[in-house]
Amino acid sequence: MRYSVNSVWENNKRIKKWKEGRKMPCIVENYDVCVVGAGHAGCEAALASARLGLETILFTVSVDSIAMMPCNPNIGGSSKGHLVREIDALGGEMGKNIDKTFIQSKMLNKSKGPAVHSLRAQADKASYSMEMRKTLQATEHLTIRQAEVSEILTEGEEDTYKICGVKTVSGATYYSKSVVLCTGTYLRARCLTGEMVTHTGPNGLSAANYLTDSLKAHGIEMFRFKTGTPARMDKKSIDFSKMVEQFGDEKIVPFSFTTNPEDIQKEQVSCWLTYTNEKTHEIIRKNLDRSPIYAGVIEGTGPRYCPSIEDKVVKFADKNKHQVFIEPEGINTNEMYVGGMSSSLPEDVQYQMYRTVPGLEHAKIVRNAYAIEYDCINPNQLYPTLEFKKIKGLFSGGQFNGSSGYEEAASQGLIAGINASMYVKGKEPLVLDRSEAYIGVLIDDLVTKENHEPYRMMTSRAEYRLLLRQDNADLRLTKKGYEVGLIPEDRYQWVLKKEALIEQEMQRISKVMIGANQKVQSLLEAYGSIPLNTGTSLVEMIRRPELSYDILAPIDPERPELPDEVREQVNINVKYEGYINRQIKQVAQFKKLEKKKLPEDFNYEDIHGLRKEAIQKLNLVKPVSIGQASRISGVSPADISVILVYLEQLKYQNTKK
Amino acid sequence: MRYSVNSVWENNKRIKKWKEGRKMPCIVENYDVCVVGAGHAGCEAALASARLGLETILFTVSVDSIAMMPCNPNIGGSSKGHLVREIDALGGEMGKNIDKTFIQSKMLNKSKGPAVHSLRAQADKASYSMEMRKTLQATEHLTIRQAEVSEILTEGEEDTYKICGVKTVSGATYYSKSVVLCTGTYLRARCLTGEMVTHTGPNGLSAANYLTDSLKAHGIEMFRFKTGTPARMDKKSIDFSKMVEQFGDEKIVPFSFTTNPEDIQKEQVSCWLTYTNEKTHEIIRKNLDRSPIYAGVIEGTGPRYCPSIEDKVVKFADKNKHQVFIEPEGINTNEMYVGGMSSSLPEDVQYQMYRTVPGLEHAKIVRNAYAIEYDCINPNQLYPTLEFKKIKGLFSGGQFNGSSGYEEAASQGLIAGINASMYVKGKEPLVLDRSEAYIGVLIDDLVTKENHEPYRMMTSRAEYRLLLRQDNADLRLTKKGYEVGLIPEDRYQWVLKKEALIEQEMQRISKVMIGANQKVQSLLEAYGSIPLNTGTSLVEMIRRPELSYDILAPIDPERPELPDEVREQVNINVKYEGYINRQIKQVAQFKKLEKKKLPEDFNYEDIHGLRKEAIQKLNLVKPVSIGQASRISGVSPADISVILVYLEQLKYQNTKK
Repeated sequence: MRYSVNSVWENNKRIKKWKEGRKMPCIVENYDVCVVGAGHAGCEAALASARLGLETILFTVSVDSIAMMPCNPNIGGSSKGHLVREIDALGGEMGKNIDKTFIQSKMLNKSKGPAVHSLRAQADKASYSMEMRKTLQATEHLTIRQAEVSEILTEGEEDTYKICGVKTVSGATYYSKSVVLCTGTYLRARCLTGEMVTHTGPNGLSAANYLTDSLKAHGIEMFRFKTGTPARMDKKSIDFSKMVEQFGDEKIVPFSFTTNPEDIQKEQVSCWLTYTNEKTHEIIRKNLDRSPIYAGVIEGTGPRYCPSIEDKVVKFADKNKHQVFIEPEGINTNEMYVGGMSSSLPEDVQYQMYRTVPGLEHAKIVRNAYAIEYDCINPNQLYPTLEFKKIKGLFSGGQFNGSSGYEEAASQGLIAGINASMYVKGKEPLVLDRSEAYIGVLIDDLVTKENHEPYRMMTSRAEYRLLLRQDNADLRLTKKGYEVGLIPEDRYQWVLKKEALIEQEMQRISKVMIGANQKVQSLLEAYGSIPLNTGTSLVEMIRRPELSYDILAPIDPERPELPDEVREQVNINVKYEGYINRQIKQVAQFKKLEKKKLPEDFNYEDIHGLRKEAIQKLNLVKPVSIGQASRISGVSPADISVILVYLEQLKYQNTKK
Repeated sequence: MRYSVNSVWENNKRIKKWKEGRKMPCIVENYDVCVVGAGHAGCEAALASARLGLETILFTVSVDSIAMMPCNPNIGGSSKGHLVREIDALGGEMGKNIDKTFIQSKMLNKSKGPAVHSLRAQADKASYSMEMRKTLQATEHLTIRQAEVSEILTEGEEDTYKICGVKTVSGATYYSKSVVLCTGTYLRARCLTGEMVTHTGPNGLSAANYLTDSLKAHGIEMFRFKTGTPARMDKKSIDFSKMVEQFGDEKIVPFSFTTNPEDIQKEQVSCWLTYTNEKTHEIIRKNLDRSPIYAGVIEGTGPRYCPSIEDKVVKFADKNKHQVFIEPEGINTNEMYVGGMSSSLPEDVQYQMYRTVPGLEHAKIVRNAYAIEYDCINPNQLYPTLEFKKIKGLFSGGQFNGSSGYEEAASQGLIAGINASMYVKGKEPLVLDRSEAYIGVLIDDLVTKENHEPYRMMTSRAEYRLLLRQDNADLRLTKKGYEVGLIPEDRYQWVLKKEALIEQEMQRISKVMIGANQKVQSLLEAYGSIPLNTGTSLVEMIRRPELSYDILAPIDPERPELPDEVREQVNINVKYEGYINRQIKQVAQFKKLEKKKLPEDFNYEDIHGLRKEAIQKLNLVKPVSIGQASRISGVSPADISVILVYLEQLKYQNTKK
């Protein structure tokens, strides 16, 4: 039959009436772990718990958007490369997945010290998503379900809530022993392009509009953050002759410690560098009032360290140009990402501003730049395990926790997935401290410090960054991954062996003396190094900046044959021994305070002498140790002393009893 | 800063206020052709016009969903395979694209006559979409733009409207000389799974909610149709041992006449056959009132020839089982399509019903089955060129025209794209009649007959189906594709040569006599054919059902070496000569009426003796010929006679002047 289109809305009323008072039986299923959201955090969380043998269900609003990269087309980069290596050492998937799907790879900062070397790869976005989906689908104990989760289900009263599952919009109930929330930027998402506002998630996908209310009903404090992405341009319309070509490394280094470097040497695609100019900035300044965000009409908080181009133009008014990186979105697409120029300005302004950039004079926009606002939590409500303090068994990771970045998300997802599993198994959770991993720094910052904007990892945030190198992530963390159950025996044994080899070689070379003979002098000459006056230790020579452990091989005849990765560690250990030892001492100090545990049920109001602000902050964060307490902003060293005295008194009272 | 989540909705008000009275400059661009929607119709339309050298812009709500297959994972099948071959012969893309991306291929009905042979291939959905996108992106004169079109722009008054472009939701204006609407199922789309109703397009993508109003404001009559899709199951959860494996053909035949068969021989994946049973049907019958569609609360009309499982159970109450085909969605995914069981029943009922099917006892649903309702037009408002009668320069194709199926959509998209281009170039449009192509039948049915439900192509709809075979689509249509400008010279020359070779060989064999010698008799014996008593013509022998042109090669020593495709045509021409000649005569009759053109400005009320119903229908359809008029339901043979007499009178009067 034919119907007028008006009848659609009449039908809505009819549906409502028809639904009224109807019984609607629903699916009920049981799992060990429910993971909500299948972005970079959710994928790691679900893989971790399923691989640990727990029946896991992973919810996504669209199976086609699993492990989607809605913003930049790369993985890694400064400090983020460290995170990926650490994820890999713990048994996560991100490193393996980018090794399968990269189209360009580069070790950044190679001219600087090893602490800031960082691997970054351009991804083929479609393949990245597809390969991760394949891995998920092939994993035992893992069920993927396309559905929007609208509620968390709990037992008990406020302050003693315990998670028992989730409900979807269709009313289906999935009981589970633990739940991991990784909703990314989907919660009540709103996209903004100048005056145009749409209520969708990233990339036009459906937003998730209900879960926020359920969380709020459980007393969870929510934030509203925003982030943004630049336009995508049609490659055909770009004049690359006006840009500087950016090549990948000649020798490609993998992210994953399990990837054989020989297997991933391949032809790479280029990126391109160009710049904004005064004309660009003028157009932006003239149109600032046309961005509802910039005009202050909307106040979701954006990432300071990943600002929009309008933010940059305003905040760095004296700079007359900004870098613009043109990066391919994949090998099967013409779309190019305009890195460095994210924006929420209107479409027509975008056209004007992009076209002032050399090479983009005739560029055609395929997809507009936009900003996206979304609900997330105040992560101070989480323990360092990423469990909610208020709801036992509920964990969370990723942008939902107020971070930004794929790597930050994956890191938290992995830890949340591991700890959700440990919770179900009744085992000790995995908590990495600031001296053990960038992941430790990331999570400690999130759960301890005040976060006014999406949190981004940076090397400067890691106090012990000379110890937390990307090259030694396996030595630092494989054992922990093994204990958790995500690292297989052979991989663990190899790391033990590698450790032993490094140790043996360090011992051996500490005793090697080099004479000032002709062979030595000509080698030194070849590397522009001052000749020896007298015999000296091999170790001393390795320390010379122009030399290295490998360079000195010809004059070290007793040297055993060792794998690349062992030699690299020996070299770094020798070269940076002084700095490393200093940091190791600092870490010992740091650990002392971390070991002083604070009881969970501590009421800081009972402690005389604490300032009011400190009491408030301490009661909110509920630090697990004196160390964590000392990092809370608003808690002074004097406050810490007061707590330490109080703890001593308690101890004394307890021994008396 | 931190904001309570409630502020989102307050901000909405603030945005509204901020927008009030603001000047919002917008993009203005100029094109020759705008194509709205990048599904199977839109892709063909845009490729056609861009390849014909016209500056073309293709709009899609999501670049990631270009050429998406939201329902079944195959291309072709009975009569639809014909359409794909015809698209290919005219210079369209669908055949080439499936040849690149199929994972199983099968020529259906091989035991029956050549008229109903139909090629069907299972597609890798992700690759199908990706390859089409690649082709679009590599095409000159073609711009892809992610944006929702909300308005058509016209010049002139009602009845003399002329298209001049489109507007998007952001206010951007794209002026163009012609527009092709291919909005598929997106217009005011609503998805239904039992009591759950969401306002989204297929696969959770954003619906397009504004264009309908713009069309209605131009006096366009809209229909509301619905269609549906079954659940997708996790392969891991299916017990294939309880199903019958369905293999692909050993020798794979391509869809495109340009694909070298040798290039596409490859390993294929299997499909699986299983059945519903009484238990399935009982569950469905018991829960019919839980489908708003079935309960009659919603009245969008669904496809009769692609019914939901609940439709089948009710309409064929005596059948105690229905076929269920389990088909892979691709090679990189675990998702399996449950062919034959589309449904709009609620999630919990879906689980019950699917799990009664042998092999699906423990099946896990990845994506629910759902029905989708959408706005489309009454296609009687179109000329056979697919141009709107009311709006010059506006064309349309696909589900927007009230059809169903990827192939039906692509066929119309191609013709609409060609005719939009011919319109811009001021050239004659391409109209295929019912004797020339299935595409002709499809479009004539749509624009002439009453369509109460989504239209599906079927061999039975083609009166001259013995002439309209899939094997001779190139002979029938390549010339037209060449004249239009979509077929390159060499391809056209090859078809001319093929025609000549067939003709020559037909001539030669018509004179070949076979003697009853020993060699002949033993050949006949080998094929179980009665021995000859006396010499007979080769042609007579080819006609024997157990023999063929190829089989008789050994006793036809003068035979030239000919390509497979030529030999095939010779064989069919000989074997079915009688039937073919009869249809050729019928076509001659048919053409006579098609040639009797009816003026566009005819007012049927002026003709005395026409019945009222006939006048109404004729004024609505505005048939271009007596032939088309005769196919309008409600127009009787007597009415046709009246018109013919009237035409004669007119002619007489005109000659007198």
